[in-house]
Amino acid sequence: MTQTTVTACVLIIGNEILSGRTQDVNLNHIAKTLGAWGIQVREARVIPDVTKTIVDTLNETRRRFDYVFTTGGIGPTHDDITAECVAEAFGVNLIIHSEIAERIARRPAPPDIMAARKRMARVPEGATLIDNLTGGPQGFRIENVFVMAGIPAVMQAMLGSLEGKLKGGAVVRSFSVTAYVGESQIAGPLTDIQNRHPSVDLGSYPFFRADRYGTSLVMRGTDPAELETVLAEVSAAIVAAGETPQDIQRS
Amino acid sequence: MTQTTVTACVLIIGNEILSGRTQDVNLNHIAKTLGAWGIQVREARVIPDVTKTIVDTLNETRRRFDYVFTTGGIGPTHDDITAECVAEAFGVNLIIHSEIAERIARRPAPPDIMAARKRMARVPEGATLIDNLTGGPQGFRIENVFVMAGIPAVMQAMLGSLEGKLKGGAVVRSFSVTAYVGESQIAGPLTDIQNRHPSVDLGSYPFFRADRYGTSLVMRGTDPAELETVLAEVSAAIVAAGETPQDIQRS
Repeated sequence: MTQTTVTACVLIIGNEILSGRTQDVNLNHIAKTLGAWGIQVREARVIPDVTKTIVDTLNETRRRFDYVFTTGGIGPTHDDITAECVAEAFGVNLIIHSEIAERIARRPAPPDIMAARKRMARVPEGATLIDNLTGGPQGFRIENVFVMAGIPAVMQAMLGSLEGKLKGGAVVRSFSVTAYVGESQIAGPLTDIQNRHPSVDLGSYPFFRADRYGTSLVMRGTDPAELETVLAEVSAAIVAAGETPQDIQRS
Repeated sequence: MTQTTVTACVLIIGNEILSGRTQDVNLNHIAKTLGAWGIQVREARVIPDVTKTIVDTLNETRRRFDYVFTTGGIGPTHDDITAECVAEAFGVNLIIHSEIAERIARRPAPPDIMAARKRMARVPEGATLIDNLTGGPQGFRIENVFVMAGIPAVMQAMLGSLEGKLKGGAVVRSFSVTAYVGESQIAGPLTDIQNRHPSVDLGSYPFFRADRYGTSLVMRGTDPAELETVLAEVSAAIVAAGETPQDIQRS
């Protein structure tokens, strides 16, 4: 059985992440959500609100990955330039989308405020909408690029509306085990196990907790039976190092 | 007076961030720390433990930015491949650095464990060390690339040791004010203010808190006097929209 791999790149657009003012949490949510749908996030970039950077990054990544997901820059203010950058990247016009405009018009406002809100109805010609279950203006999709809001709750509502609508490949499962063992103590056996199971991605992540060093061993792959074998071998290596395998998880 | 701009790119290396297993917090710390030193993080990338991706990304970014900071992939296990990738990117050999090897040897261990730990002494030829105030193996610098650990506490100790040793440009100051005002309500005045002060980066960040929408207005620039003017103008726009400027901060 051949299994397809479907890849994605996430573009986090916003000066506030790069200045350190805001801690991004969108990448983590997107990675977990897409992972469960059989789409593997293979790269993420945090880029500033600069037209050329956004356009160049879009054009590079939409060719390299099956899907590109962007967050940020689709609000009503002068620094929200994502929609026009996407249009430029695809070489199409920016148009007012009637469905978004109607949704915006439903909430009454003085003319100057309505004019500002109308910015959020601008999409590249040919785009289809991504529903926004919070009731606010929608996001949009053009070809393999999905443009979503930066506010986490709104982004999550938009991404959630895509469930079942995207082409997914094999779902990568993740098994893990931790132990109060230094990475070096099991580095040798881990290398051997990885070499015996090249289709499993075996990761070793040290942590420091309650004054002790420990290691999380994570095995990721699409075949649960092989993951079970690798988990058993890793657990045996921990025992051989004189420690106890703990907190075994399979997801 | 001309002010120099010094830029940086951050490379977060690790499958665990891209799978969503781990929430990255290193970018935020690096951005704030470098910002205070007059170094502006202009882009960040999260990339997997894949040799070609790491090498290509290093070679692209080290030419485009004044500095490149990497986190992750310098531990003792098979999935720690950052050092060899940096060597390949620079076209130099990977050598054992005697100072790191000495530090590693100070903590006694059986031969197989010591052999694994020795991996952490490998650096590209010509690299200098980045001290690790936690007492563990050091990171390293080669030309404009700084290679640090992925564990936040260790990364922070390494970055901290660089204070005062890097060329910084003008420090970007950040003033901010929030209000329970929709972005659209002040979008017009914000555009005017931004146009009057092109050297200030005026950002508008909506939030949803306690059932109310609000907006943070953030102005960033190197001239505190001009930031003070922009802050006054933004505050006046909030008042004109019938709301109250709150939580004014200057950093």
